[in-house]
Amino acid sequence: MKFEVTILGSSSATPVHNRNPTAQLLNCNEKFYLIDCAEGTQQQLIKFGLKAAKIDYIFISHLHGDHYFGLIGLLSTMHLNGRIKPLHLFGPAAIQEILELQFKHSDTTLKYELIYHVTNPAEAEVILVNQDVTVETIILNHRIPCTGFKFTEKKRLRKLIVSKLEEQNVAIELYPLLKRGLDLTLPNGTVLKNEAYTTDSATPKTYAYCSDTLFDESYFASISNCDTLYHEATFLHDMLDRANETHHTTALQAAQVAQAVGAKNLLIGHFSSRYKTLNELLEEAQSVFENTSLAVEGTTFQI
Amino acid sequence: MKFEVTILGSSSATPVHNRNPTAQLLNCNEKFYLIDCAEGTQQQLIKFGLKAAKIDYIFISHLHGDHYFGLIGLLSTMHLNGRIKPLHLFGPAAIQEILELQFKHSDTTLKYELIYHVTNPAEAEVILVNQDVTVETIILNHRIPCTGFKFTEKKRLRKLIVSKLEEQNVAIELYPLLKRGLDLTLPNGTVLKNEAYTTDSATPKTYAYCSDTLFDESYFASISNCDTLYHEATFLHDMLDRANETHHTTALQAAQVAQAVGAKNLLIGHFSSRYKTLNELLEEAQSVFENTSLAVEGTTFQI
Repeated sequence: MKFEVTILGSSSATPVHNRNPTAQLLNCNEKFYLIDCAEGTQQQLIKFGLKAAKIDYIFISHLHGDHYFGLIGLLSTMHLNGRIKPLHLFGPAAIQEILELQFKHSDTTLKYELIYHVTNPAEAEVILVNQDVTVETIILNHRIPCTGFKFTEKKRLRKLIVSKLEEQNVAIELYPLLKRGLDLTLPNGTVLKNEAYTTDSATPKTYAYCSDTLFDESYFASISNCDTLYHEATFLHDMLDRANETHHTTALQAAQVAQAVGAKNLLIGHFSSRYKTLNELLEEAQSVFENTSLAVEGTTFQI
Repeated sequence: MKFEVTILGSSSATPVHNRNPTAQLLNCNEKFYLIDCAEGTQQQLIKFGLKAAKIDYIFISHLHGDHYFGLIGLLSTMHLNGRIKPLHLFGPAAIQEILELQFKHSDTTLKYELIYHVTNPAEAEVILVNQDVTVETIILNHRIPCTGFKFTEKKRLRKLIVSKLEEQNVAIELYPLLKRGLDLTLPNGTVLKNEAYTTDSATPKTYAYCSDTLFDESYFASISNCDTLYHEATFLHDMLDRANETHHTTALQAAQVAQAVGAKNLLIGHFSSRYKTLNELLEEAQSVFENTSLAVEGTTFQI
């Protein structure tokens, strides 16, 4: 099953140095989940050959513009391009008021249903369960209410050992039951122990997205043992005072989070405009947590 | 004096075929006037090496997203980049509500003064007079209230014929009076007839911007004899029904407007996504009005 994330923006605050502000597109089993949506996100989707029409879920972490100013444009484009299938939008309560005010003044009635799901900035919750993924919020510590999002793949069905099943002439009709882990007793009394005919599927992977936050142990538990952690790393550690003041994190701190929670891989992004090149940020993080990558535009990471 | 316009977007409705929706930057004597501001306008400014910080006036024609969704992002970037000088914003009344709702939810208090000037969609008015330019609205006929903008250079001072003045030993202190067109009587009784010592300055140029509109003679008078007319040309004329239905204009009609009002040059833009290439639109307009150019991104036109 595909479980990968493509970075659409890596800049904090403003577009600069060919970097756009934050947005990411998660592909989980060919279903598409947009995470944050800065100005220009629809242009970034086009640039990287990704189809906005395939997105069925959008998640907005908080209402700083570098995380959502592209939302109204993307939703409008979907409307103008004839979308009719519903779209689920998860984010702070005020999004609805902001969007509807603009739809009203442009005399726009969306051709598709936009389903608002309000995130609770005070408590981590499961906000979506479908056949592919479970999504939970992560309570971050920023200047305004802000939630991250943890995506966990659904546990897949067990894998059949087809050669063995054929050897025993097991009827194909029984395969789905075996996939679901059942032992079977055949009419002739033969018992098929599940573990002899199937193997376990891969352990579900998790992707944790921590957009804007102060370094704060309170959210560590909710991202423990994630496979891939995206964590903002706005500054180098010599700017720790500025990071604290603006409720952001340094590259070193992002790496410390990854290490503390037992992540397998770390992606860092949300880089300050003061950094024209990003090598120093990467090196600083890797000095603590080696499996760190820069979450730069157009890159796709397998989770 | 510089009087030129740089095109930042030429697409209607959505970004497509490497075209961004509408925005233009007018440079009048090194003062900068932004006309409309689609999503991605701040990125377009960066791309073409233009400085957002230099813009002191922004004009929004109407509240369809392809003309203003980039405004909140641009204003936020100016704030984040430390702008302190005031900014004048001209447009429909609801802009203020839309912007302030978003500033409230991002907990943003702009560091500079944003001065709102509400345009009247019912009557053409002078909305700005400064030392370089006069700006008047143009009442267009669109699905929602929409105004164009006509920019007229200020009449320059008369030009001195310095060689003659020096021949007569006219004191330099008197030059400003001559520039302003006065005849002078010197203490010795000599009369300096202004027309003997100065020549008229160039006739002030006008730039008329007609964003989104049905072909409608009611606005012709307010753009008569403009030097450069920008007129939307969303469709080819074989799509006239669609143009009428959506309150837009065809390339042929844009050319007919230019011809009818006695414009010297025509720029056409706001091209529908159905046109991957633009040659046919240009040829159709030129069949009626030869001095037509495509208002494509990154091009600067002298007015």
